[in-house]
This record gives sequence, structure tokens and C-alpha cells, in this order.
Amino acid sequence: MLDLNDEYFMQEALKEAQKAYDEDEVPVGAIVVMNNKIIARGHNQVELLNDATAHAEILAITSAFNLLGSKYLPEATLYVTLEPCLMCAGALYWGKIRRIVYGASDVKNGYLHHTKEPGPFPAKIEITKGILEAECAFMIQSFFRDKR
Amino acid sequence: MLDLNDEYFMQEALKEAQKAYDEDEVPVGAIVVMNNKIIARGHNQVELLNDATAHAEILAITSAFNLLGSKYLPEATLYVTLEPCLMCAGALYWGKIRRIVYGASDVKNGYLHHTKEPGPFPAKIEITKGILEAECAFMIQSFFRDKR
Repeated sequence: MLDLNDEYFMQEALKEAQKAYDEDEVPVGAIVVMNNKIIARGHNQVELLNDATAHAEILAITSAFNLLGSKYLPEATLYVTLEPCLMCAGALYWGKIRRIVYGASDVKNGYLHHTKEPGPFPAKIEITKGILEAECAFMIQSFFRDKR
Repeated sequence: MLDLNDEYFMQEALKEAQKAYDEDEVPVGAIVVMNNKIIARGHNQVELLNDATAHAEILAITSAFNLLGSKYLPEATLYVTLEPCLMCAGALYWGKIRRIVYGASDVKNGYLHHTKEPGPFPAKIEITKGILEAECAFMIQSFFRDKR
């Protein structure tokens, strides 16, 4: 399903990733959208929080859970700049999110690399990849290039 | 590697699971052990926290991160009554835990059911399963039987 808003919302996820970059965190950003509105944001804060689980997606969906007072997000879409890892894919599974949209693929730590076909999600969860892929990948690559 | 303490520590994880049971949560408990001491505990609090990610393992390791002021747990063992799900396996991967010991297998949501061989963990991470397996499985089965 082509959604003309996907690029707009991925830009917003990229703004979150930029915040991570500026804080010297691996630059991944995520937002949660419901009814075409951004209800939660998150960027990677593993270093700041000293917490290996503080990925952008986890922070964004737990923020959404808190906002809604609900442990499920069946009407929400998560936009994230990088393919979710196994942990985040699992969290999105448990959170019953409706749709996942990601930018760049992650051939090393992305969930697709580690999970069996047909993947960990029920068939009704829609997954869209490659939105602003080049921009999302460029941000990650720039970060690790600067680190070297 | 047979560790005579494994049953003792799994009993402690079972105590955590019992707390979850008593709070009407799916009864899974976890503890983090370092140098033969329990440094963190967690039990499933998905309902209480309205947070689909609030699994026992996540709460136990984030508690350990906070305690140690470290985002890695390379000297720690996690004991958990049930085979970790994909999310928790991913979190344990990121947390660089040294060893994982679990009780009952989870053929539906356990990480082994969803991940490709050889699994998501580096070879140096030791994984022991089946410690107090019957007790751990019984607690889960009792919970779902009571629910029906």
C-alpha cells in the first residue's frame, strides 16, 4: 500500500535519529503514528541510559503505551529509520502494532537476518521497507565513518 | 557445565514467577546472578505497567544495568523460568550476558521457534535449559488452566 504520508513521517523519524547522532548515540529514530498524528517519539539512548535495551523503537512504543494507558497499539504505525533488530521486532509483536515502516535494511542485526520464514509477525501486520532508504542508511554510515 | 547452584537460583526465579501469578500476570520470573549473588530480580508486569515489553527478563536486566551503571552484563547469568521470547533473547544479546539458564521450553513464543540456526547468540554465550523444568512448566500451565 503506497501511503503518501510515509515519506513525511519518515522525515520525522530521521529528525529523531539526528538527535541521537548529536548525542553520540548510534543514530536511529522512531515515531508512533495514530490517525495520522505523531503520538510518540524515540531515539536511541543506549549510552545515555546505560541500557542496552534503550533502542528507538522500544522508547517510542513504551511512550505510546504510557500515553494511551494501553499495552497494545493495534491502530498505530511505527516508523523507524533502520530495520528493527530481534529485540525490537519482538517488542512490536507483543505490542500488536498494526504497521511497521522502516528505512534502511540492517543486514547484520536486522530481524530478517535472524528469523525463520515467514518472520515473527502475524500476516495481518503490514510491513513497508525502503522509505527514504538512502537518507536513513547515510545517517548510520556517516556516524560509523566519523567514529573511525 | 553442571552447576550445582542452578537449581537454587531457579527456585529464586520461581519465587519471582509466583509473585507474577499472585498479581494475575502470566507467571514468569527472572533473576540476574553475578559472582554467585543475586543482583536483580524481575517478574512479568505487562498488566500492571500496561506495557507489552515488561517481561521478567527485561525488568531484571534493566534493573541490573541500573545497579551496575553499565549497559553490559558480561559476567552475569540470567535465570528465567520460561524460554525467552524473541524480544527478550534480543535484549540478552544486546546486554552481552554471559550465560542464560531457563526452565521450561516455550514452543509457541520461545526464541528457538523463531530464529534460524545457530540462533541469535554468539557461541561464547552459554545456554542451559531444563532446570526445574517441570516446576516451571507447571506454574504456567496452572495459570492458564485457572484462567479458563
